[in-house]
Amino acid sequence: MTTTDPTAPRYPTSLGTSTATEINLLGHDLAGDLMGKVGFGELAFWLVAMRRPSPGELRVFESVLVALADHGFTPTAIAARVTYLSAPDSLQGAIAAGLLGGGSRFLGVTEDCGQFLHTALNTHEGPPPATEDEWDQMALDAIARQKKLGKHVPGLGHPNHKDGDPRTPVLIGIATEEGLRGPHLQLFEAIGRMSERGVGRALPLNGAGVCGAALADLGLPVELLRGFALLARCAGLLGQIAEERRNPIAHDIYMNVDRGAVYVDPQTGTDPTP
Amino acid sequence: MTTTDPTAPRYPTSLGTSTATEINLLGHDLAGDLMGKVGFGELAFWLVAMRRPSPGELRVFESVLVALADHGFTPTAIAARVTYLSAPDSLQGAIAAGLLGGGSRFLGVTEDCGQFLHTALNTHEGPPPATEDEWDQMALDAIARQKKLGKHVPGLGHPNHKDGDPRTPVLIGIATEEGLRGPHLQLFEAIGRMSERGVGRALPLNGAGVCGAALADLGLPVELLRGFALLARCAGLLGQIAEERRNPIAHDIYMNVDRGAVYVDPQTGTDPTP
Amino acid sequence: MTTTDPTAPRYPTSLGTSTATEINLLGHDLAGDLMGKVGFGELAFWLVAMRRPSPGELRVFESVLVALADHGFTPTAIAARVTYLSAPDSLQGAIAAGLLGGGSRFLGVTEDCGQFLHTALNTHEGPPPATEDEWDQMALDAIARQKKLGKHVPGLGHPNHKDGDPRTPVLIGIATEEGLRGPHLQLFEAIGRMSERGVGRALPLNGAGVCGAALADLGLPVELLRGFALLARCAGLLGQIAEERRNPIAHDIYMNVDRGAVYVDPQTGTDPTP
Amino acid sequence: MTTTDPTAPRYPTSLGTSTATEINLLGHDLAGDLMGKVGFGELAFWLVAMRRPSPGELRVFESVLVALADHGFTPTAIAARVTYLSAPDSLQGAIAAGLLGGGSRFLGVTEDCGQFLHTALNTHEGPPPATEDEWDQMALDAIARQKKLGKHVPGLGHPNHKDGDPRTPVLIGIATEEGLRGPHLQLFEAIGRMSERGVGRALPLNGAGVCGAALADLGLPVELLRGFALLARCAGLLGQIAEERRNPIAHDIYMNVDRGAVYVDPQTGTDPTP
Repeated sequence: MTTTDPTAPRYPTSLGTSTATEINLLGHDLAGDLMGKVGFGELAFWLVAMRRPSPGELRVFESVLVALADHGFTPTAIAARVTYLSAPDSLQGAIAAGLLGGGSRFLGVTEDCGQFLHTALNTHEGPPPATEDEWDQMALDAIARQKKLGKHVPGLGHPNHKDGDPRTPVLIGIATEEGLRGPHLQLFEAIGRMSERGVGRALPLNGAGVCGAALADLGLPVELLRGFALLARCAGLLGQIAEERRNPIAHDIYMNVDRGAVYVDPQTGTDPTP
Repeated sequence: MTTTDPTAPRYPTSLGTSTATEINLLGHDLAGDLMGKVGFGELAFWLVAMRRPSPGELRVFESVLVALADHGFTPTAIAARVTYLSAPDSLQGAIAAGLLGGGSRFLGVTEDCGQFLHTALNTHEGPPPATEDEWDQMALDAIARQKKLGKHVPGLGHPNHKDGDPRTPVLIGIATEEGLRGPHLQLFEAIGRMSERGVGRALPLNGAGVCGAALADLGLPVELLRGFALLARCAGLLGQIAEERRNPIAHDIYMNVDRGAVYVDPQTGTDPTP
Repeated sequence: MTTTDPTAPRYPTSLGTSTATEINLLGHDLAGDLMGKVGFGELAFWLVAMRRPSPGELRVFESVLVALADHGFTPTAIAARVTYLSAPDSLQGAIAAGLLGGGSRFLGVTEDCGQFLHTALNTHEGPPPATEDEWDQMALDAIARQKKLGKHVPGLGHPNHKDGDPRTPVLIGIATEEGLRGPHLQLFEAIGRMSERGVGRALPLNGAGVCGAALADLGLPVELLRGFALLARCAGLLGQIAEERRNPIAHDIYMNVDRGAVYVDPQTGTDPTP
Repeated sequence: MTTTDPTAPRYPTSLGTSTATEINLLGHDLAGDLMGKVGFGELAFWLVAMRRPSPGELRVFESVLVALADHGFTPTAIAARVTYLSAPDSLQGAIAAGLLGGGSRFLGVTEDCGQFLHTALNTHEGPPPATEDEWDQMALDAIARQKKLGKHVPGLGHPNHKDGDPRTPVLIGIATEEGLRGPHLQLFEAIGRMSERGVGRALPLNGAGVCGAALADLGLPVELLRGFALLARCAGLLGQIAEERRNPIAHDIYMNVDRGAVYVDPQTGTDPTP
């Protein structure tokens, strides 16, 4: 509740505020205007974008969250489960441990891909591409710049789904249906078509990447795209912990790793047992 | 991707699994059956409950998530913002730092209240209450047991909304509309009616508490109710970080705290400056 | 740097404070009086206890930290390693993920044991035990109270070291040498002697427990004993991450878990593959 | 405990291993060879470097840890304290929340500075500098490269200690006394001498930077220097939480921030209250 002391520090916000009788969120009456009237995904979009999504935007946005929620026994799920095993009194610690794996390598691809496409679009000179050939040329240029920086192209390639990630065409299809296949997705598709020419072999467009492209086309801030992957994963991690309670595996994981321990002499690098 | 080695350890799961061509979640084809067809809140419910919610259940569930998403400058928001100030390269760290405040005192009320009501209902002997009087008696008994344990009654009282938390009647109303005002909500309402008799003064039923009661009435596991508060807050924290990027306040918070530092001698407990 | 505005909030502290020319810690000149003159373990004790340890206290204290630093591939080490695999850009996230496993089940034993002994000592009526028989009686009473609460006795038993944890006699020996085998350690030893009578079978006194007893005998706050286990483990986790960089195993852990995934129908609980 | 199954996965390690009767760490008997015989700082060095430090190395190393342990009400301390307020049941969560601020901006300077100096030394062609003039030239080159990359020079400048950080000369003095003023510290000193010529104004060498230079001169891996800052800060955060228990301020911080909240319309950017 805001002070009336004029010398006290003031911290501006457009999010949650309250008085003795009101609770507001985004300038709306939380109880009267939002609860029961706004979906949770819708609110998540709104909290970041500062505007309510259209139904089509919401469908694309929720498709992304659904696509990213859980990928099985990833490092994030393993970290959450073994942390819950070790500290079952602190569910928040297990969820936090899982989310902390949402960095550059795994969940970060969504953000990296969105930023990569965004940069390519924003540094493009001249009128925007109008034909598939022009998109392909922009894609080749973007791939070349990335290679020159010694970096790989985010969103390209998948360890398991070598012949194509099934999420990619589905999300592009949903965005197209909703009239939201914008420049990021179009450039991403061109990257896919040009991957063989640009990087030397045909690589599939992966699901994390297409999610980044779709979120960027929704106008969400590209510096925060990882955040939506984290939100999606938060739901997945809850599912992992709920399953760990019903059908625990973390102790087995721990035992199987611990039993595999072999002492190696740090100087010689060899197992000293005969 | 599952091994074919029969001696390798096996870890059962009903969540995400995949092969070279398929990605499944909850036994369904993620791309074909879930993306674009299931909302994010719906999936979050499903991941924990192992069943798809009905439309009414989903509306109550999402109302709870909306109610808990953001409460302004709480400890969780402050922790997330100052962590983002200090480590802007790691969005996941800022979100995790915020969620770590989701413990016994703040976000934990939702879970504590759900568990308290659940225990009262499960330890009740005889037929379930049929009249308001019988609910009131159960409420008085539950309050008395809690007092005997030296604990406060979770869900009762609010530091700001002393005359009533506006979220409480709205959520009960939504649950009633959807035919989901079950025993936990009914007992919670009775706790409210009996608070003056039971604890000596009329206290409002708070929003965190009613959320716990409503989630418990949806059949969600009461040991994990805190998890839904964490999921909701994850969206709120994303909003806080997005706002911190647009309109930073964390540095001011830091400076205002740091400037207020006064050295106190640990032995004498006094400020040694004259 | 402290403000001169008399209406600004003031936050008392006995820890770090600074002006334009000075940096103080615990009321001492950090650069002139502490750096190069106080060891790190010594400072850690001082920061919590608000007094500098004696050389004997420091030796016991550092023995505890050394005992708790690393226990190989525990859940904390696994969580830290897979998080580092997933987010190598954020060392702090990997360390934090590891520490989050320092809860009730693993690292918490140190604190639980210290608190258990402390409570037994503080609720004891009459003069303190003077003979081994009197300590044994106090131990039996404490075990009985714990059993009545339906709780196990913390510090008793070890999954691997069934015939005795080698750390236990060594730490008691060090404390004895330094004249610091106080009431918590004496009661802990009595618990060991009485375990067969009290719980029905002879159980060894484990290393985590003896560490809690020794820390409590140093007068450190029993509510924070887990914190010293966390500090010790922080060093161990750094070692784990350094080794992960030299000789990575997290990807293998991840692959071995992922390959073991078997889909189980949540309704039937069976693997549907023929 | 290591399995005897030859087909089970094996995970090499030089850290903690155990059998039913032994607990080893770094290939030594933990109870017999390390407890009471190795200090905690010494062990922390050893766990990362895989070699025991000399007494002189240990003195420099512990001086760094002492220098970085606590800087008062920093973002890390604020995050830890408000998290402890909100979730007092989870000390590990409060410590983890504090450490998560150990990123690029605050605690990261130690690592950034060590890496910057390391890169400058490793990319230098020709014989190493032999005179102060040659060190100064190397410093000017390194500053120029950094400016060309659009980056600031890590370790240079301090918001409060504009006329010199008192830790810097003290740590250089300790390293000199111990014969450990190596190339990183020498280059760091040259950066200080050249700051006016190189960046246009005389800037002090800060304490975080000199710590990074000293750690790099000890041969510790420059990619993990941040880790030592985190270890040091772990002790400081324990001190902050211990103080929060004795003399709480987190609730006041929270209240002072919450009271300062002013709703700002996200579209107009103005406070809509008249």
